[in-house]
Amino acid sequence: MIISIDKSKSNGVIDALGAATTRAGATMRVIDWIDGSLSVDVSGPIEPDALGHPAIISVRDVTKPYRLASREHREKTVVRVGDVEIGNGTPVIMAGPCVVSSVEQLLRAAEAVGAAGATILRGGAFKPRTSPYSFQGLGEEGLQMLAGARAATGLPVVTEVMEPDQVEITADYADMLQIGARNMANFPLLKKAGKTRKPVLLKRGFSATIEEWLMSAEYILAEGNSQVVLCERGIRTFDTSMRFNLDLNAVPYVKELTHLPVVVDPSHGTGKRSLVGAMALAGIAAGADGLIIESEPNPDSALCDASQTIEPAELARIARKSMALTDLLAIEELAIA
Amino acid sequence: MIISIDKSKSNGVIDALGAATTRAGATMRVIDWIDGSLSVDVSGPIEPDALGHPAIISVRDVTKPYRLASREHREKTVVRVGDVEIGNGTPVIMAGPCVVSSVEQLLRAAEAVGAAGATILRGGAFKPRTSPYSFQGLGEEGLQMLAGARAATGLPVVTEVMEPDQVEITADYADMLQIGARNMANFPLLKKAGKTRKPVLLKRGFSATIEEWLMSAEYILAEGNSQVVLCERGIRTFDTSMRFNLDLNAVPYVKELTHLPVVVDPSHGTGKRSLVGAMALAGIAAGADGLIIESEPNPDSALCDASQTIEPAELARIARKSMALTDLLAIEELAIA
Amino acid sequence: MIISIDKSKSNGVIDALGAATTRAGATMRVIDWIDGSLSVDVSGPIEPDALGHPAIISVRDVTKPYRLASREHREKTVVRVGDVEIGNGTPVIMAGPCVVSSVEQLLRAAEAVGAAGATILRGGAFKPRTSPYSFQGLGEEGLQMLAGARAATGLPVVTEVMEPDQVEITADYADMLQIGARNMANFPLLKKAGKTRKPVLLKRGFSATIEEWLMSAEYILAEGNSQVVLCERGIRTFDTSMRFNLDLNAVPYVKELTHLPVVVDPSHGTGKRSLVGAMALAGIAAGADGLIIESEPNPDSALCDASQTIEPAELARIARKSMALTDLLAIEELAIA
Amino acid sequence: MIISIDKSKSNGVIDALGAATTRAGATMRVIDWIDGSLSVDVSGPIEPDALGHPAIISVRDVTKPYRLASREHREKTVVRVGDVEIGNGTPVIMAGPCVVSSVEQLLRAAEAVGAAGATILRGGAFKPRTSPYSFQGLGEEGLQMLAGARAATGLPVVTEVMEPDQVEITADYADMLQIGARNMANFPLLKKAGKTRKPVLLKRGFSATIEEWLMSAEYILAEGNSQVVLCERGIRTFDTSMRFNLDLNAVPYVKELTHLPVVVDPSHGTGKRSLVGAMALAGIAAGADGLIIESEPNPDSALCDASQTIEPAELARIARKSMALTDLLAIEELAIA
Repeated sequence: MIISIDKSKSNGVIDALGAATTRAGATMRVIDWIDGSLSVDVSGPIEPDALGHPAIISVRDVTKPYRLASREHREKTVVRVGDVEIGNGTPVIMAGPCVVSSVEQLLRAAEAVGAAGATILRGGAFKPRTSPYSFQGLGEEGLQMLAGARAATGLPVVTEVMEPDQVEITADYADMLQIGARNMANFPLLKKAGKTRKPVLLKRGFSATIEEWLMSAEYILAEGNSQVVLCERGIRTFDTSMRFNLDLNAVPYVKELTHLPVVVDPSHGTGKRSLVGAMALAGIAAGADGLIIESEPNPDSALCDASQTIEPAELARIARKSMALTDLLAIEELAIA
Repeated sequence: MIISIDKSKSNGVIDALGAATTRAGATMRVIDWIDGSLSVDVSGPIEPDALGHPAIISVRDVTKPYRLASREHREKTVVRVGDVEIGNGTPVIMAGPCVVSSVEQLLRAAEAVGAAGATILRGGAFKPRTSPYSFQGLGEEGLQMLAGARAATGLPVVTEVMEPDQVEITADYADMLQIGARNMANFPLLKKAGKTRKPVLLKRGFSATIEEWLMSAEYILAEGNSQVVLCERGIRTFDTSMRFNLDLNAVPYVKELTHLPVVVDPSHGTGKRSLVGAMALAGIAAGADGLIIESEPNPDSALCDASQTIEPAELARIARKSMALTDLLAIEELAIA
Repeated sequence: MIISIDKSKSNGVIDALGAATTRAGATMRVIDWIDGSLSVDVSGPIEPDALGHPAIISVRDVTKPYRLASREHREKTVVRVGDVEIGNGTPVIMAGPCVVSSVEQLLRAAEAVGAAGATILRGGAFKPRTSPYSFQGLGEEGLQMLAGARAATGLPVVTEVMEPDQVEITADYADMLQIGARNMANFPLLKKAGKTRKPVLLKRGFSATIEEWLMSAEYILAEGNSQVVLCERGIRTFDTSMRFNLDLNAVPYVKELTHLPVVVDPSHGTGKRSLVGAMALAGIAAGADGLIIESEPNPDSALCDASQTIEPAELARIARKSMALTDLLAIEELAIA
Repeated sequence: MIISIDKSKSNGVIDALGAATTRAGATMRVIDWIDGSLSVDVSGPIEPDALGHPAIISVRDVTKPYRLASREHREKTVVRVGDVEIGNGTPVIMAGPCVVSSVEQLLRAAEAVGAAGATILRGGAFKPRTSPYSFQGLGEEGLQMLAGARAATGLPVVTEVMEPDQVEITADYADMLQIGARNMANFPLLKKAGKTRKPVLLKRGFSATIEEWLMSAEYILAEGNSQVVLCERGIRTFDTSMRFNLDLNAVPYVKELTHLPVVVDPSHGTGKRSLVGAMALAGIAAGADGLIIESEPNPDSALCDASQTIEPAELARIARKSMALTDLLAIEELAIA
């Protein structure tokens, strides 16, 4: 049971609920959301009288193990990254290079993807690489370049964090923290990201079930950070002709289960430049709230993931069609009703 | 190397090519296509002079193991089912009940899906069931009902064949033969279907690679039947929260490799009624040439697959949006150019 | 509920049970086993008085969907192939070439694997090949060669059938019918094999669940043929560094669920000659009742599957160690008790 | 190319090799192994004269991306955990409870598994849990209990670390650091573990390819820590009837590729108590250097993983049979030669 509380009248309600919970033999957790709201999660029975307190706004039964991420708890969450809203009905395009390699490369890429319709800039400063001998990213220097590109273009920035100790410094520079597929079950990292006041882009592990993905979101929410965007980025299957296998089924399915926005990454999801456009539009048609795409001028010279990085012109086509597609689906729905 | 031959002038060319092939130590197969055209497939070298014969229309190098299915061999195939064309740019909706259970049920379903926008009627007379104790279909009686529904509604009919001995009788009644996922590698069945003059809907095995799928199409083509439509219907992955996992990546990817049309089955691909609409539209956005969907009035009373069968009203919404979506993508493309 | 009946006293019992079943609103199937025994499977309630008939030997409740294959129905089945017993505690080695290509090749292979410890000869006459252009086997000529090799060596023969129409002729020549992984869900083929009096080696589909595998066995059993041996031969996973992934977990697990013997195919299960020995012994340690292994002299010149075919000397080592391992596990167990 | 150097004569050799590498346009890394040896890894060409230096013991060409983990680099590594050797031909049994919950529980478990034949004690102090609401382990208090159990029983201790900041404190208490399946690609954690002087048990991610697993080992080796033991613990497949799917193919296969010892975890690999024994012995037969098994008295009362935890009596049976099996395989091999 999740109890929403009016913070302005909360005087004494937490203690009262705690006592009523304890007497009923249940346990209670208080969630002081970073957006300023307050709620209480009770596992087990509670004395019903306690629910009459005037500070209590709503009481919702929750049966899913991902209690706070569940749609039983909340209808819809809109996440704000800088001035950009994710989950408000208009698809959001996040784009940029796989990895930040120089000030010039990043600036040109940022300007190009912005012109193409992206409203959030992506780019890696800390890079998880399968080989210890591959380029591992520029670290803080890369973060500074991202901040510089934001200053130059006005685009808010999303970038990956790989370990708890990088969270604070990344939060200093970036507007949104990305947790990569390999770290979806890095629970200390999730907790640390949950303690910041930054929105989090949580990629699905490439062999994580839908429930495991939502449980990982729950780790972040349980720390009071409700600003989580889920990102489907391809799963691993028996068919290795593509790098990964973008699982679009996950989009409508997870939206039945959670109030969090969902975006789709057709770049990692296919690993193949020529498929990015089709799968991006398919993602929007499946109901995604946005896309995250690797794009920069001269993709073939990209330091990593060159084979899946697209030209800004193709990004512009995707962005334009995504908007039209969203409009069409929405308008036609009205026409029927 | 695939050599297309003008049948009207073919006098002697087959023998000449055969001799030139043999002398060069290669092998040759003649494909007398059921559409009336003629071609010759040479594996290995051939004496170049033999290619100057006036009956030879074109010579194409083919490197893929699925020689006839490859786009190296042909740009595009449009398949005709009755009067309906699949692969001509307009998405085709095939719909109907999972299984044919009575004349009344089938007629009502056929009328309902026709009214909703379907132009091909689907329905099972021979049903592959995991359990020997489940209803296995009405057999020939079901085929007769399908023919009756066609007579009543004008909709051509696609229905499944499970073994070589069913091919002939099914071809007598139906307009298109469906080969199901479990039989994608039933090579005797593929050969037999290749010998008929009926178009074939070849479903992808639920753990078949893209290449295996095209090799199975090749079995049909190698018998001279070029009228093959591929159908992606969901693969098996580690995530069993859905019945199967519709692999939309396969749509744009397989279209890079083959000239055959590709349709999508969001019913089996998800196993979940509430997801059919989103995945159907995502399939169209990904570039599919059509959809095959389980639909009938009162889906909950369906004899099989009830949980994935949708109402005709939902089918109508999908059909309408599919058309609009196709138009939008096509028109906007023109606007840019 | 499965009711075993003494055939010598069965006069009237079938009718009595049928009537008692019908009155209780349930359904009944009679199974006239090809081994001469008789049983009746009742789905639903039955009038309890009917169970007192003197011809009734035992009554067993069965809850699994694979009713006849379930251990609830029977403790243990020993399958006889010629004079060889599978499932009696001593591991059985089946070995031979992938495909029969000539009288000489087969005879040499048969003698070599017999000398190495194999007691059943395997070899393909009908071969399912991914490509229509690959060698598809010698057909009946291959069956004749197999019969010849049996006459020369005394080894009973197991060989694959691919379609219902091949079952009869194959049963004329062979001692055991193999149903391959690609045909595990070829239900018409399963039924036809169930109607013969030959034991059947039923390979697991490479993406079949344990339950689906047992349901396929049920198709054979439901026709009255109890002589089914299950064969684990590798599944398809995300890791394609090996051809398939021999799933040894299936061995002890399926033995908890069924009374049928289980053998292991480390040749197809790994696709890699150097791994066959280790995985064969691991299979025996996991509790398998036998092995089926591709082996012939000069494996590198094999017409198919050369990379997974082992030398007879390696087969001899595997056979010897398998026996010793079985003894050791059995003896030590006694020592403890 | 990996160049082994005699540290006692190394005066000047590093500089000379560095210069010869640079002049040839290649790159060089020095690995100062924590076992006191020294080597140099050159990627690219080197001036051949430089290889004549008297301090150079051996020069090996390495083509695999996991350069230091490759068998091209070294034949065999024996890892020492306290006084216990892993990889010397005798299988090592690591056992204990899933999670440390109290001094008494741990002591009783340690004594029981020691008596059963385990020579290394396992137990979790930091526990990665899918749900933020599950018991997350006792942390440092649990480490102290493990150290206490070692003092009482003499068994060295292996325990999991989940984040870089836990490595130091865990290394203070434990004899071997475990990196769990979910953290196999937690590269900052791997690097940190590589910098300690403790042996590392590196579990395979449940959807990691063999190559990715070895690349993760490479992260540890590249820091100079050669004491890595690989642990196969089950992969994720389409078949979810078991919790995971122990991939024994990986055992002989990975041993062809690497010099590192490999152990098998049949507890997580199956998730089912009744299968642990069979799969443990199958693992030994497949060539594993040891087993890690969850065992404690009264498994049903275990705080986590109860369904896969076995009784010490069953552990004793496994240990005894593992030894006998190893002997048998070794002795018989001699008898043949």
